[in-house]
Amino acid sequence: MTYFDNAATTWPKPEEVYRAVEDTMRNFGGNPGRSGHRMALAAARLVYEAREALAEFFNAESPTNIVFTMNATDALNIAIKGVLKPGDHVITSSMEHNSVARPIFALTKSGVEWDIVKCGSDGTLDPDDVAKAIKPNTRLIAVTHASNVTGTIMPVEEIGKISQEKGVIFLVDAAQSAGVLEIDVQKLNIDLLAFPGHKGLYGPQGIGGLYVREGLHLTPIRQGGTGSFSEELEQPGILPDRLECGTLNTPGIAGLVAGVGFIKKKDLKNIRSHEEQLTRRFLEGLKEIDGVTVYGPAEAAGRCAVVSLNLKDMDSAELAYLLDSRFDIQVRPGLHCSPLAHRTLGTEDRGTVRFSFSVFNTVEEIDRALDALREVSTGSW
Amino acid sequence: MTYFDNAATTWPKPEEVYRAVEDTMRNFGGNPGRSGHRMALAAARLVYEAREALAEFFNAESPTNIVFTMNATDALNIAIKGVLKPGDHVITSSMEHNSVARPIFALTKSGVEWDIVKCGSDGTLDPDDVAKAIKPNTRLIAVTHASNVTGTIMPVEEIGKISQEKGVIFLVDAAQSAGVLEIDVQKLNIDLLAFPGHKGLYGPQGIGGLYVREGLHLTPIRQGGTGSFSEELEQPGILPDRLECGTLNTPGIAGLVAGVGFIKKKDLKNIRSHEEQLTRRFLEGLKEIDGVTVYGPAEAAGRCAVVSLNLKDMDSAELAYLLDSRFDIQVRPGLHCSPLAHRTLGTEDRGTVRFSFSVFNTVEEIDRALDALREVSTGSW
Repeated sequence: MTYFDNAATTWPKPEEVYRAVEDTMRNFGGNPGRSGHRMALAAARLVYEAREALAEFFNAESPTNIVFTMNATDALNIAIKGVLKPGDHVITSSMEHNSVARPIFALTKSGVEWDIVKCGSDGTLDPDDVAKAIKPNTRLIAVTHASNVTGTIMPVEEIGKISQEKGVIFLVDAAQSAGVLEIDVQKLNIDLLAFPGHKGLYGPQGIGGLYVREGLHLTPIRQGGTGSFSEELEQPGILPDRLECGTLNTPGIAGLVAGVGFIKKKDLKNIRSHEEQLTRRFLEGLKEIDGVTVYGPAEAAGRCAVVSLNLKDMDSAELAYLLDSRFDIQVRPGLHCSPLAHRTLGTEDRGTVRFSFSVFNTVEEIDRALDALREVSTGSW
Repeated sequence: MTYFDNAATTWPKPEEVYRAVEDTMRNFGGNPGRSGHRMALAAARLVYEAREALAEFFNAESPTNIVFTMNATDALNIAIKGVLKPGDHVITSSMEHNSVARPIFALTKSGVEWDIVKCGSDGTLDPDDVAKAIKPNTRLIAVTHASNVTGTIMPVEEIGKISQEKGVIFLVDAAQSAGVLEIDVQKLNIDLLAFPGHKGLYGPQGIGGLYVREGLHLTPIRQGGTGSFSEELEQPGILPDRLECGTLNTPGIAGLVAGVGFIKKKDLKNIRSHEEQLTRRFLEGLKEIDGVTVYGPAEAAGRCAVVSLNLKDMDSAELAYLLDSRFDIQVRPGLHCSPLAHRTLGTEDRGTVRFSFSVFNTVEEIDRALDALREVSTGSW
């Protein structure tokens, strides 16, 4: 099996992730922050250490600036709805996923204004265009760090500077970049960073998080028990309690920390270098296959390990089915929940076939995919 | 170790729950509903079968009426905020958890009216009082099925009838009852049922759900990618997609289904009977210990396997600490995120010490706890 759907969810996970989840379920079965007995305290300690590990990983001010969520979509909703009020203006790129676009679209019905800055046909965003879109009522700029369709890396450093200068809150969707590209929230002037646990951070599905800059006060979309200030009907004001309620996903958090530990051991630079090498080899190989259209930046350095393509006039679902059933290669066809991006690329009718790589993929697998595409192209399969 | 904190989270889990979580992470690593390849389809099938299992378990109309959430608190927020608009009136009991009280309290700031029906000092609720509280603008009645502080079982069948007669939506918080008490949503006229995965259903932490009656249209609190209708910026109207977005907790869902399977194998009636027996023995034994005040119904039949108590004038945290450190018995002290309930019981100052049992607890453990309390009471430890 050649698994090239890592932009949807990475697989396999490092062995230590499986072990951490199981060990937590079996041995740290208490409810973190809810009781004072040993097993509950052990669970609470595990969760706190997870905040520490993620705070260090993204260079957050403190562990309490890390909020655990169900997934990146949940984190994005908490961020977007926590910031925007009727009358506010928000700017996004034209490459955003529905996890950014749909919450904002819902808010436009209650008087939030939304401008979409048009990206180039390779998905690249000019930061000057973002600066030009800022208005007196602009409250938020929300941009993906890397497109989930083309892998295109966005100029977050430049946008961070612009946001800071203009006093606008900057939200980055790190769905494709967390664990792959270096993210220092303080250096990049990121106010809110939404990240999934189950992609580049190699944690299990069901856990994600939101970094919230110190001092930034969000209106919560959820209220409930926090194990703190229990006598108050008002949701606590402090982080992370303000934005977290109900029982946390302790085994998922343990798995996520194990994933982060794996990345630290491997070193992010080596992971990125390996994935860039795979992407470069794939892009080079594709040039020699008749009828392949590749979307996104020409150079591997300009993208995450995500390559979208189409072959001749084949339907994307048909090609993906063929790759799975005849060649045992798993890729994702269609719109990838990003209609805005496909409008930018001009592929809204048939979508694209997306190949996405992880640290566990190999050069041999890339070559196998190239061979398969060549066979399909020449009709020799 | 004698673990009596099962109302916070059950522990241990059945062996098959641990195995299902691990097996899913290792072998069903695709993203359900997001791609067409074999591993993604296997994950999607697993999720659909989970909906089927839960729909059957609660007698929902169809698997699509089961929405997966992060936890019961998330489900309650989706339900409460999906129903209530400014100007609407909502009724709750005075025994509600902060997971019901805090979201409603937040909504009162934007013009939702809230009446709290006072329960008896044992936490019991008179359904006639609920009927009397209904006003022309009453849109929702939200009641816990069983108190997390005293275990008191609420008259949900009677309230269901009243709600149906009056055309009011009925939301039941099954945080303590799912997997313990029989719940037939159609028979009980329940419109919305919020349930945690990690308590009586013996699944892992990080998964919960919401049953939504067919035809009931909720305004979602979250929007994002659903893998469906991806070309639309509007969140899809169909269930479960309308209320679910982002990557689901597939391993958690697999664990939850294994937990439900365990309950079906054991039979709910046997589980309830075992837990009632433990509760009865504990309540009987407590009568013979000097200085114990027990809260909630006198009879075990009137409550879930939850017993809150205080001993003489001891602080609840002090007693719980002693039980943990000297006797290796794990219980939960304090307010249990339910200040309303403690106001009802008159225990808002020091809280209570809560003992809560699961199917894995034994008569010997009950006796050990009684011995420990006797020793503390007589000062002979």
